[in-house]
Amino acid sequence: MSAKGQLSINLATTRGSWGFAEAVDGCLRHDITAIAPWRDQVEAIGLDEAARIVKANGLKVTGLCRGGMFPAVDAAGWQANIDDNLKAIDEAVALGADCLVLVVGGLPGSSRDIVETRKQVADGIAAILPYARKQGMPLAIEPLHPMYAADRACVNTLGQALDICVELGDGVGVAIDVYHVWWDPDLAAQIARAGQMGTILAHHICDWLVPTTDLLLDRGMMGDGVIDLPGIRAMIEAAGFHGPQEVEIFSKENWWKRPGDEVLATCVDRFDTVC
Amino acid sequence: MSAKGQLSINLATTRGSWGFAEAVDGCLRHDITAIAPWRDQVEAIGLDEAARIVKANGLKVTGLCRGGMFPAVDAAGWQANIDDNLKAIDEAVALGADCLVLVVGGLPGSSRDIVETRKQVADGIAAILPYARKQGMPLAIEPLHPMYAADRACVNTLGQALDICVELGDGVGVAIDVYHVWWDPDLAAQIARAGQMGTILAHHICDWLVPTTDLLLDRGMMGDGVIDLPGIRAMIEAAGFHGPQEVEIFSKENWWKRPGDEVLATCVDRFDTVC
Repeated sequence: MSAKGQLSINLATTRGSWGFAEAVDGCLRHDITAIAPWRDQVEAIGLDEAARIVKANGLKVTGLCRGGMFPAVDAAGWQANIDDNLKAIDEAVALGADCLVLVVGGLPGSSRDIVETRKQVADGIAAILPYARKQGMPLAIEPLHPMYAADRACVNTLGQALDICVELGDGVGVAIDVYHVWWDPDLAAQIARAGQMGTILAHHICDWLVPTTDLLLDRGMMGDGVIDLPGIRAMIEAAGFHGPQEVEIFSKENWWKRPGDEVLATCVDRFDTVC
Repeated sequence: MSAKGQLSINLATTRGSWGFAEAVDGCLRHDITAIAPWRDQVEAIGLDEAARIVKANGLKVTGLCRGGMFPAVDAAGWQANIDDNLKAIDEAVALGADCLVLVVGGLPGSSRDIVETRKQVADGIAAILPYARKQGMPLAIEPLHPMYAADRACVNTLGQALDICVELGDGVGVAIDVYHVWWDPDLAAQIARAGQMGTILAHHICDWLVPTTDLLLDRGMMGDGVIDLPGIRAMIEAAGFHGPQEVEIFSKENWWKRPGDEVLATCVDRFDTVC
């Protein structure tokens, strides 16, 4: 195990081969004892069984993906989104997750009003925050790359996410994914600010490929792209976060087509050599 | 002609059908008297002939695309880039363009150092600025969407571009393309700042499609996407810029496959109804 802290595998990374149980077995074969599952993967095996597997193997769960997706076109849609987030908090608690990752959502319906949508997002997090605090489950706002502003998340910079943290107070932090933030001219300052606020809850890694052929499903393995992974890691460590680096790779045409064991062996190798 | 100011056509928009001369003829058929050509289009017909066509028809040239692409891996490459930019300044002058648009360039070679690359960009603009000033040609830094940070432009927000303007002084401004900046949480403040600085040199329009199927060549026609075009126009007008809105659409699978006259008719209609 590297001195730089633990490797965690977001189970999206092995989605091409494995469900929850197979992915855990795979991780254990590669001496990986931290994971971050997606809710559909947990649902497929059942929350109780997933929680049992986590406990039986002493796994660290670096996050549950994902809550969020707050914006809605009407009150019924809004309430359904809130209810689903409350359920996600319960699931994260059952799994003993470090945080519930929030991908906050994009423009609802035919809206072109990103300012109003961003207000809805802050209202949505505020609406679930009392329950999250009561359950002791930190909420991790994940700023997403601006190319997802329309359809996935209208929180697009770390600074913007931290502004929401300031507005809402205890119980809300950030998940910093290098894929989403590496380009930001203000990155160093905002990571330092996040550290001062004590809000860094997760550190996700992968790489930005050149060229990138798909907006969603063409993330690269660490080392295959242009992100300065050690540089960003140094910023995050200097900001006081020494938790696991969680590998999250959506790669429809490459890594999702390879055997899960090859994917994990590559993650371990790259984590040791380039991260 | 709309009261809101003039329509300009960036000749990339009709690239699927037409070269420079045909595009000018097409624009005139649709009562469009402002254009922005690309250097390869000018070169194909010859600079003298392009300049003659512009003058003979009394066309406004809202910009020449493009200078920039400064970062290089070695001194020879750097000097070649500088020389090419000086040539572009001469071409912009010959065409009587309002500005030379700068797409500043991305990470050179195998670099992962975006901070150093950004320094190279500022150095590159500084290197050509004395000549641009002498020739009276404004340089318009175009911040590009963060999804182009690696391979096209490491200036990715309007605020970052304005910081360079502050650093370098007179003769440098910005081209604000809605496609690149619409997502920016700081957009309103930075457009106001640009206005106070007197640095807005161009206003480009198109739309962000959902879904977007290609990172470079899937821009939408105004009204077909999610950008609040009237809202951003209002910000830019309030900041004191009342120049043409220049339509720049790269659309390999849609608009570039349609007849140029259909593309222009649609631009005129959408400009009147949704911009």
